[in-house]
Amino acid sequence: MTYKLLLLPGDGIGPEIMNEVREILGFMDQAGLASFELEEDLVGGAAYDAHGAAISEEAMAKAHAADAVLFGAVGGPKWDRVPYDVRPEAGLLRLRKELDLFANLRPAICYPALADSSSLKREVVEGLDILILRELTGGTYFGQPKEIVDLGNGQKRGIDTQVYDTYEIERIGRVAFELARTRRNKVTSMEKRNVMKSGVLWNEVMTDLHRRDYADVELEHMLADAGAMQLVRWPKQFDVIVTDNLFGDILSDVAAMLTGSLGMLPSASLGAPDPVSGKRKALYEPVHGTAPDIAGKGMANPIAMIASLAMCLRYSFGLTDLAARLEAAIANALESGLRTADIMSPGMTQVGTNGMGAAVLTEF
Amino acid sequence: MTYKLLLLPGDGIGPEIMNEVREILGFMDQAGLASFELEEDLVGGAAYDAHGAAISEEAMAKAHAADAVLFGAVGGPKWDRVPYDVRPEAGLLRLRKELDLFANLRPAICYPALADSSSLKREVVEGLDILILRELTGGTYFGQPKEIVDLGNGQKRGIDTQVYDTYEIERIGRVAFELARTRRNKVTSMEKRNVMKSGVLWNEVMTDLHRRDYADVELEHMLADAGAMQLVRWPKQFDVIVTDNLFGDILSDVAAMLTGSLGMLPSASLGAPDPVSGKRKALYEPVHGTAPDIAGKGMANPIAMIASLAMCLRYSFGLTDLAARLEAAIANALESGLRTADIMSPGMTQVGTNGMGAAVLTEF
Ligand SMILES: CC(C)[C@H](C(=O)O)[C@@H](O)C(=O)O
Ligand SMILES: CC(C)[C@H](C(=O)O)[C@@H](O)C(=O)O
Repeated sequence: MTYKLLLLPGDGIGPEIMNEVREILGFMDQAGLASFELEEDLVGGAAYDAHGAAISEEAMAKAHAADAVLFGAVGGPKWDRVPYDVRPEAGLLRLRKELDLFANLRPAICYPALADSSSLKREVVEGLDILILRELTGGTYFGQPKEIVDLGNGQKRGIDTQVYDTYEIERIGRVAFELARTRRNKVTSMEKRNVMKSGVLWNEVMTDLHRRDYADVELEHMLADAGAMQLVRWPKQFDVIVTDNLFGDILSDVAAMLTGSLGMLPSASLGAPDPVSGKRKALYEPVHGTAPDIAGKGMANPIAMIASLAMCLRYSFGLTDLAARLEAAIANALESGLRTADIMSPGMTQVGTNGMGAAVLTEF
Repeated sequence: MTYKLLLLPGDGIGPEIMNEVREILGFMDQAGLASFELEEDLVGGAAYDAHGAAISEEAMAKAHAADAVLFGAVGGPKWDRVPYDVRPEAGLLRLRKELDLFANLRPAICYPALADSSSLKREVVEGLDILILRELTGGTYFGQPKEIVDLGNGQKRGIDTQVYDTYEIERIGRVAFELARTRRNKVTSMEKRNVMKSGVLWNEVMTDLHRRDYADVELEHMLADAGAMQLVRWPKQFDVIVTDNLFGDILSDVAAMLTGSLGMLPSASLGAPDPVSGKRKALYEPVHGTAPDIAGKGMANPIAMIASLAMCLRYSFGLTDLAARLEAAIANALESGLRTADIMSPGMTQVGTNGMGAAVLTEF
């Protein structure tokens, strides 16, 4: 069995951290642990520079053909002024939408070795292990109308539309309950039903689904603003948080920052399993961005990218043991005292991107 | 000069904390420091129970006639199932919209006496003094269409619309820059221009306004998700944060929670000054909610409500000295070691709502 992977390193530190993933894939292949067929292409600003679009049709075709996509990061000041439709982010959004990757899993895990690098008190974040499940193909991100209208008299009107249909809420809800069953069996659903009609529907659909099919899982509803507060106050109260695309964008970033390990956090964006083959589309990417300030310096932390590969091994290929082994290798590399600059602290040994990638491979 | 105040205590702990404000107003009146004419009415669940609406026409008329409104809090589990249009929050939203209170000032201040009660490390929040300026009458909260459509086949569609016109962004931008000039002269504007057209317009209008009229103030643009992260990572980097209604809802709650003093934080919602009289509509309310679990027990912390009165004295009546005196009295009551249950810590003396209100008055 050979797994077809498309690598889309993107911009900024993307290519550097993707290199470390390529090393690990090469090692697994050579050691006979798994066999990969790699494709690679441009996305984001890099694709714009080459083709005038944030992703080419050819790269999209490769994404459709792949078993999974490994994505670095896109964007940077260089492309701040390019037209909206071809801005770097458009490449990522097109991939999410066309591959129908509606379920975005963002684990917020606090590595023991890094608990002190959080801005929160150690006792608040030590041992933290929560999962933000973000709806990724609906809501304000994709609803129509989405436009700027010229009203004359120097006035313009900016419009975005939040749209959610029952089935969209239900399918992400199912993923939430299923994941909770493999964890601590609790789902917190966040919306603003006191202000938004989509929030009213969201709440209603979650409640029904729970009653019908998942009564064994604890379901809690929380307003998204209160939820943001609770995340900062005492995040360990949560297990799985399920929320819409825009709230999920903000809340998963808050959760990521709690752990003090932004450069460490992976994410998985999954489609629905094919009813016949059981296969599903998937894209894996770090939660962090392109870090233009350190791009090209060999300083970036590759761990989030490597941990994204681990999620890929688990969720796309069912290689659970290999995924766990890779995750343990990351934890051990940290325990051994190695740190990239972003997580450096007194008494530790600073290494670069390559150094950290090599250390993970050594511990593997 | 007599100031006309409308008190709307609302639900839950609202009436209890409003009592303490009434005491302070009475004292100021008797001591000849200022003269107040008080009206009072129902809002939220209390108004629904009495009139079947979240605010009566009569109460709205009083709000229009008043120089300022002091608002407690609305909502609670009792009204979780009432129809959307008459839910408790509708009363507050109607007040904001009809009085055109577009500028919501939410200071996030860390009281020195409470720095340790934050979930964040002391050094991250000690001395924190930032201001979240939230647009309050536009965006997803009020845009049309806002509805749930039955699509048949058991499918519904929930729709909300984010709408911002140039003038709405410009007027909140002006308030941001003016406030920054009285503080540390820095404005951070947050939106999601990489995903939302309203964010593109927001960014454009802020940039133009800055160039035209406020080039002396530092302007920084930040994506709202990155901004949420930065708030958690190092909040002291900010001075004034200006953002839209929905992002402001979430981000101001995150900022409030950073301070560890949710029960302490006031807010002001201001309209535009009348071009002739210079007067403007205003509503002042604590950032916290109705705390149904402790309502009626005399335990609630009245400080956020009292601090809202201080903002009222400052922003509506220009009674700057009196406002500062009241704020100092709050700080001194805390320094003297008194704490309500929500901020209690070892070695301090626990008091109830009345006890804290009386202590502030003693220090006044
Ligand atoms: C790059 C951007 C379009 C994206 C988003 O807003 O979804 C990012 O912030 C994320 O969270 O994956
Ligand atoms: C009560 C609710 C409608 C309100 C809001 O969402 O604006 C509250 O959360 C706030 O922040 O003032």
